[in-house]
Parts: sequence; C-alpha cells; structure tokens
Amino acid sequence: MPLPLSDRAHRFPASPIRKLYPLAEGARSRGVQVYHLNIGQPDLETPAPFLEVLHKFDRANVAYSPSQGEKVYLDALVEYYRQIGFQLETSQVQVTVGGSEAILFTFLAIASHGDEVLIPEPFYTNYQTLAMVAGLQVVPITTRPENNYRLPAAAEIEKRITNRTRAIMVCNPSNPTGTVLTRQELDLLAGLARERGLFLISDEVYREFVYGEGEAISALSLKGLEDRVVVVDSISKRYSACGARIGCMVSRNAEVMDCALRLAQARLSAPTLGQLGAAAMRDMGTRYFDATVEEYRKRRNIVHEELSSIPGVLTHLPVGAFYTMARLPVADAEDFARWLLTDFSLDGHTVMFARFYATAGLGNDEIRIAYVLKESDLRGAMACLRKGLERYRELKG
Amino acid sequence: MPLPLSDRAHRFPASPIRKLYPLAEGARSRGVQVYHLNIGQPDLETPAPFLEVLHKFDRANVAYSPSQGEKVYLDALVEYYRQIGFQLETSQVQVTVGGSEAILFTFLAIASHGDEVLIPEPFYTNYQTLAMVAGLQVVPITTRPENNYRLPAAAEIEKRITNRTRAIMVCNPSNPTGTVLTRQELDLLAGLARERGLFLISDEVYREFVYGEGEAISALSLKGLEDRVVVVDSISKRYSACGARIGCMVSRNAEVMDCALRLAQARLSAPTLGQLGAAAMRDMGTRYFDATVEEYRKRRNIVHEELSSIPGVLTHLPVGAFYTMARLPVADAEDFARWLLTDFSLDGHTVMFARFYATAGLGNDEIRIAYVLKESDLRGAMACLRKGLERYRELKG
Repeated sequence: MPLPLSDRAHRFPASPIRKLYPLAEGARSRGVQVYHLNIGQPDLETPAPFLEVLHKFDRANVAYSPSQGEKVYLDALVEYYRQIGFQLETSQVQVTVGGSEAILFTFLAIASHGDEVLIPEPFYTNYQTLAMVAGLQVVPITTRPENNYRLPAAAEIEKRITNRTRAIMVCNPSNPTGTVLTRQELDLLAGLARERGLFLISDEVYREFVYGEGEAISALSLKGLEDRVVVVDSISKRYSACGARIGCMVSRNAEVMDCALRLAQARLSAPTLGQLGAAAMRDMGTRYFDATVEEYRKRRNIVHEELSSIPGVLTHLPVGAFYTMARLPVADAEDFARWLLTDFSLDGHTVMFARFYATAGLGNDEIRIAYVLKESDLRGAMACLRKGLERYRELKG
Repeated sequence: MPLPLSDRAHRFPASPIRKLYPLAEGARSRGVQVYHLNIGQPDLETPAPFLEVLHKFDRANVAYSPSQGEKVYLDALVEYYRQIGFQLETSQVQVTVGGSEAILFTFLAIASHGDEVLIPEPFYTNYQTLAMVAGLQVVPITTRPENNYRLPAAAEIEKRITNRTRAIMVCNPSNPTGTVLTRQELDLLAGLARERGLFLISDEVYREFVYGEGEAISALSLKGLEDRVVVVDSISKRYSACGARIGCMVSRNAEVMDCALRLAQARLSAPTLGQLGAAAMRDMGTRYFDATVEEYRKRRNIVHEELSSIPGVLTHLPVGAFYTMARLPVADAEDFARWLLTDFSLDGHTVMFARFYATAGLGNDEIRIAYVLKESDLRGAMACLRKGLERYRELKG
C-alpha cells in the first residue's frame, strides 16, 4: 500500500477551469473540435515588441534575474503605473511568476495559518487553492445573478468579519462575473478595511478591459489606505502573454514588500525571458489597448446577444474583464459541461466552459464563459451551447 | 502606524545567497568589481538549441502551457530519464517553475502544517523558507567538516524522528557541501524511510556534476521504495539556464503526482518559452555533459588547490555539484563577507560568498563557495579571499 499523503493533499481542489481537459482530449480524439470558453487564454497576438526580444536575444546565458525583478522591467512597471496615475518607488513593486504568485506572496505576508480572507463569490477558483497553500480560510461574500453580482450592503459583509479576518480581496474588473466595482462599493470596502484593521487585496489584472462608461478604479487611489492596499497584477491578459508567467504585486506598505522580497529570494527569480519581453512593451502606449478593448467589446456584445436569446438562460451585461456568468436551465451545470464533451457535437464542434462557486449548493446552474475567441468561433460556440441545451434538456426531460 | 503583518511574515529569512546584494551594489558604485561566488549562477553558455527556439519562435501568442507541462517537454523528460536508466510514465512527471516549486509542491503533498522534515545540515537555505511557506518544520541532521560532511550513523538520524516526521530530504550531489551520497548512505536513508514510514525527497539537480569515481545514485533506483521517493529536478544548472525557471518533480506515487497536478493547476502554467527551449535540448546527448563536467572539474581543482594553500582555511575535496565549503580562520564569516564588500579591494576587485547554516551558533566560520566562474576569475576571487583574510585578521587582531 502506498504511503498515505497529508490530509490537505486530498483537499486541494482540481481547477474547474482545467479539470475537464481529459474529456476535451477525448472529444478531440473522436474528431470533435472544442471551443474553449473555459479558460481566459486570449487568441489575440502577443505584441511584436515582446516577440522581437526573443528573436533578437543575444545573451550567451539565460541567467537568473534579481529576485525583485530585472531592473529594466521594474523601471517599465514604475513607468506604466505613472501613466495610469500612480507615482511609485521601485521598492513598492515586486515582479512575480504570474498574478498567482503575487496572490500567494500577499496571503503569506499579511496572514497567519488559520486566518481568514473575505472574497465576493463567485470568485476565481484558484484563489481558494492558493489560500489553502498559505493555510488561509476563504470566507465567501455571496453575490447573486438577480442582483447583477453587486456587493451586498456593508452589514452583510461586516457580519462575516471575525477576529481571524485579515483581508478583503476583490477582483476588479471581475473574473468571473465581468462586473466593475463602483466608487461606492470601493469606498464601502475601504471603510471596512480602515475601521476593522483589514488589508484590501485588489486583483486588477483586467484593469484595461472595461466596456461601459468610465474606468476601473484602482485600489491604489484610495486615500488614507496606503498601508493596507496590495494590488495583484499581471501581463498575461493585458498583453495576451499568459505563458510568459509575469505578474507583479504592488503595495506602499514597506513591510509587505520586504516580506514579498524575502519570499521571492526563496524562489530566486521570475522568468527572465518573460521579464525582458514585458519590459519591451513599455513604449507601446495606449493605442494597443484601444484596439484590444474594442475587440473584446465586440465579443462581449456577441456573447451577450446570443446568450440573451437562448430560452431559459439568465445572463447580465458584463462591463469588464472578458468573462460573463450565465444561469442555465439545468440542475447541474457541471454534468451538462461533461455531457457536451462526451456526448454532443454540432457540425463537428462542441463547447467547453467552467463552473465557479466555493459554497456547496450555490450556483450549481451557473457557468462562466470566457469570450476569448474570435467572432466566428464565438458564434459557433454559442450555437453549440444553444443546441446542446436543447438536446440535453430533452434527454434529461 | 502601518497595519501589522502576520507573525510568520517576519520569520521568513532573507536569502543568505542574496541578502548582501545591496553591499555588492555599493562596491560596484565605488568602482570595485565583485567576483560572485555567492550564487550558483554558472557563466557557461546556454546550449544553442535552447536559444534557437527563441530566435525562431513563430507562434502568434505566448500562451499558457497545460498545467502538467508542454507535451513536447514532458516527452523529452521521459526520454531523458530513460537515457539515465529509468522508465517513467508521463503521469509520473510534473513540470515546475524551477526546482523551487517542485520542493514546495512536494512539501504540500506529503506533509501537513506542523509536520517535520529531516535535512542534513548545512543545506540549501531556501529549503527552510519553502518549508515555512508549507508550514513545515525543518529538523537538521548536522554534518561536520571534520567528517567531510558525511551522514552520521543511523541512530543519530533516528533519534530525530518524531510522530510528526514525514520525510527525509537530501540534495545529492549536495549544494552546499559538494558531497555525493554513497550507496551505503542512500541505503541507510532508504531503510529509515521504509521502516519509519517516511518519504525520501531527493534533490538531484546537480546529477551530472560528479568529479570523482562513479556517479550520483538517483533515489529513483531504490528498490521497494517506489511509493515514497520524490525527486526534485531542474534544467537551471544542468543546461546553464537558471532564468528559464524550468524544473520538474518525479514520483511513482500516483497520489503525490495527482496532488502536484492540482497545485500546478492553481498556478495555471510553468513558463512556456522555457519549456520549449528545454524540450529542444532533448537530442543533445551526453557529449555536452562531458565538456561541462570537465570544465567544472578544472574549476573545482583550482578552488581546492587555492583554498588548501590559504593559511588557517580548512576545506575538503568536493566530488559533486559546483560548490565547496570552507572553514575560515575568523569568528564570524558573515561579518567578514560584509567587510569584503564594504572595506576591501585588491586590484579593483573583491569577492562575495554566502554562509549556510540553520542551527544558531553552528558553522559561523564556514562559507559556501560556488565555483561557477571561468579560471581567471576564479583565481582572482581566490586572491581576494587570501589577501582579504590576511587584512581582516590584522584589523580584528
């Protein structure tokens, strides 16, 4: 009998974004093409300056970078934040291996084993696993589709705060709901952080992707909260460079950044090639985002229009990121998702998506859709969803 | 007053390999060149096939790889292990972000918060921080320079085993001592793992770097221990590609690998570029290692010869990896290391090294030397050490 693992080993959840991959492989092996709406992997091109760094790489050795980050990239990050309105010292920025590592470092810096972090639900499910790695308990603040996934009133949030609560964490614009926090909502969270002595962790990797009026408000702009805001950031979505694995964390709390640096030293270096590529995008300016956001706005409109016209589907108009939630007329959206991969095809295609909820029993009929594909593929994917729902409901009668 | 951090935030140690960097920067700003013997950053070239992958990269998008790893690289890893004598299934290999992540995943999979792991000391100090991240306690098994850093008798190790001990971890060939475990030592550890129900974690990133007779014996070769061996590996040193951040973990324990995959899903992907580069080295064969090992053997001989001739320095002949330990005729080797950076130069140069011990009071006079520089630089570094010691001892009386 194999040596048993630790208790926690069995509790780390499989990613709902990725756990159905074997079924997708099965579909492919039967000749069925799969539209991947399950993962935020954009099909847009990584900008040319990044790729040029690779093509022209002339160092003899792919060496470690300094643990905080390559100087040229740290400078580029400080310049990027200056352009969006924030004057930072280099010491207030730590380069990380994707946004994921920024989240882990933040959890480890601000909380002890057994502490709690409040997160509006549905949330990016890897938050849960990363919290478990750090020994933290995620306490969900449930938001509902009927209410467009807006935050509940302060009292609703406040009653979840205990003496172990160390932080409130938001994703703004939100993966998976596509909502963008209003000034009011952000002020509400800032007030709680101030009054109750909490950190506010703001995952802003989708910062530029806003399709409504105005902009996503960075938590870095909150006055008087400088010592308790930590921002998680990444180039993965901003520049369609997910595989570069380059993120960063930003805070004006010197102790947080000092701890992050010591954690960074323990893993030596973030990927050097990705940092050099990311640094090269410094002077691309905002035109790049104009075109990118326009493309995602078009996709959002297609998905919203299609979803709204499928009988029994409840959706809302997402205003940020590149995700939307949809409530389906099925009892178990995950069973439906599996069935689409194992038993369904339409003109040789099927569609894959993910389910996102931490609280058992909540959102069993809700899915997240990542609108990261070009128009024709998105329309094909929506046709699969529409037809798939029809057949599945006939079958399950 | 800033919001206080968690207790543990203050306990994560600064890396002894990297914490003196600000002093090295200070030396450079005074025009003093620093020989870096503090970090295992080889100056050898990254092999051409890796660099060609960058130069010819023609995908439109630097996309996520699958969480387990790029298929082409997983295949290359299975082939690499086949060449060194081990028949593995793809499911027994997990690509990681450097060896560091492999260590963290292993700790998280096999142990619970508060559990203990035995590690021969002096050990690679980042083991300590990674153990703290996973909530584990490192229990050192002290080895001594007088005894060439060999393992103590079984009884010495056994008396450190408690009901919280989950694993014995070794680095073989060893960073920092340069020792290579004998068959006897490995059998002793295997016996303990078998009898006491422990995992054996073997960090084998220096596997090819052996200068004595014979080879480093992989823990994968231990019969009847298949379910409790986890091997940590990396291309950083093997192919002088530290900044690629590509490592892997290998185990025939399916539950361990299943847990590792779930942890990998939570961080989505290892760096895609590094994996493609690493995969391209598949067909380089062993000639590459012959030349590399010959180069390091030469360097080892230079360092050993020089160290042996410095009055008061106690050293031993390291037979593997590219490190050696040296006991210096000073009370506080770290103070000496600082002084070399702040107050010393010889012909416009100085030298930097690191101190490695977890147990307070142990090894205060011992340093680790990484012989990762070419001959002329190594000789210059040794001259600085010799002259520096002379002056420092005059000063300190």
